[in-house]
Amino acid sequence: MGNFKLTIEYDGTAYHGWQRQKNVRTIQQEIETALATMVKTPVALIGSGRTDAGVHAYGQVANFHCETKIPETAFRDGLNSLLPKDITVHECCRVHPEFHARYDVVSKQYRYRILNRQTPSAISRHNEWHIRKQIDREAMHKAARHLVGTHDFRSFEGAGSPRSNTVRTIMSTNFVDKQQGRLDFWIEGNGFLRFMVRNIVSTLVDVGLGKNTPYDFLTILQAKDRSRAGATAPPHGLFLMSVKY
Amino acid sequence: MGNFKLTIEYDGTAYHGWQRQKNVRTIQQEIETALATMVKTPVALIGSGRTDAGVHAYGQVANFHCETKIPETAFRDGLNSLLPKDITVHECCRVHPEFHARYDVVSKQYRYRILNRQTPSAISRHNEWHIRKQIDREAMHKAARHLVGTHDFRSFEGAGSPRSNTVRTIMSTNFVDKQQGRLDFWIEGNGFLRFMVRNIVSTLVDVGLGKNTPYDFLTILQAKDRSRAGATAPPHGLFLMSVKY
Repeated sequence: MGNFKLTIEYDGTAYHGWQRQKNVRTIQQEIETALATMVKTPVALIGSGRTDAGVHAYGQVANFHCETKIPETAFRDGLNSLLPKDITVHECCRVHPEFHARYDVVSKQYRYRILNRQTPSAISRHNEWHIRKQIDREAMHKAARHLVGTHDFRSFEGAGSPRSNTVRTIMSTNFVDKQQGRLDFWIEGNGFLRFMVRNIVSTLVDVGLGKNTPYDFLTILQAKDRSRAGATAPPHGLFLMSVKY
Repeated sequence: MGNFKLTIEYDGTAYHGWQRQKNVRTIQQEIETALATMVKTPVALIGSGRTDAGVHAYGQVANFHCETKIPETAFRDGLNSLLPKDITVHECCRVHPEFHARYDVVSKQYRYRILNRQTPSAISRHNEWHIRKQIDREAMHKAARHLVGTHDFRSFEGAGSPRSNTVRTIMSTNFVDKQQGRLDFWIEGNGFLRFMVRNIVSTLVDVGLGKNTPYDFLTILQAKDRSRAGATAPPHGLFLMSVKY
């Protein structure tokens, strides 16, 4: 039985997220359907983790087990010919039989794109959060520094999806100024709670808008209380960029 | 009677091009409908020129005449609240009564984006032409140099839309290498024939693929014969970037 690892890009706009669910379109389901067509038997796909409805990925990773003699590149190309155009498999490679796309994750890297200017962008409307009021990037930088390290991130956990262990380690955060008023927030961590990146971004934006200070951001993190953080930033600015093993 | 100039971005994916036509959605029509709602009377919009179905714009320009007391910024914001999200007005400003968005054009700048790698991009699928075989960028650069200057561009005119005068001046061309296998072709000229940029791009790609040499490209240009040039490159890689007056 071969074990195969896929690296996947998708435009999440038309999907109810990664995870297979009844009666709605999901990324996992589309790929499982294409896999079943390729190998003529049902295949279970293990993703590195879920992404929510409307969230995108440049580098989602998943693995599956199957018997096949199709070479890796032909397998990739075959999948792409079967998949809808808003899902692309960039790599399909045979890996160690024990590799598990979820359990073996070392870190994940996300990017959240903000467009900070008067008018939104027609062309990028599904790929960024448009914020009209001017945000103070320096204040957001300062606040984000408090994220790095090992903390209990309960304040940034999505309501209604509690985990017993809410401690995660953030290896790095970074802000990158892009053209035309765009600001990219990068964050890498060994794991993320549900809605964690979007709740962090929204709370950082509250700092950028002057509603909170960088020090307030620290107290919100330390409070371990979801009600202290900001709302959940919209999904369409968020991209799963890469998963490390 | 005021004369107003609009600077407009649009995602052309869902439209049958710029120009108003019966029974299909066009950009011009959407904006005219929004304008009529704003000023409560029909308004004729004059674009700098057409863009074809599927072609995008970051900086299309148009003008219209009307009586209004709405300030420019409020007018812009009002239009954006009425327009579908794939059309954005970035600027609305009062201009000289004689300004004409088509007749007064000095030059237009287009960008054509090619993605040259094995796999396409799910997220950018509507914004670039995916070419799988490796193209020789240096050969394309060399060929493109022949475009600059004043030439009869009949070889690159779309079939079935002949103009009596097919002489145009190209001020500059440029190739810019972008991340992940992307290549942007920039071209600025005082005017463009129908399909001219897309026919040029496709003929340049033939050079990049080794089907023709840079010198062949010159002979195609000099032949003034449409049958000598390549096919028409797909519309979705093309962006009208700016119009100068």
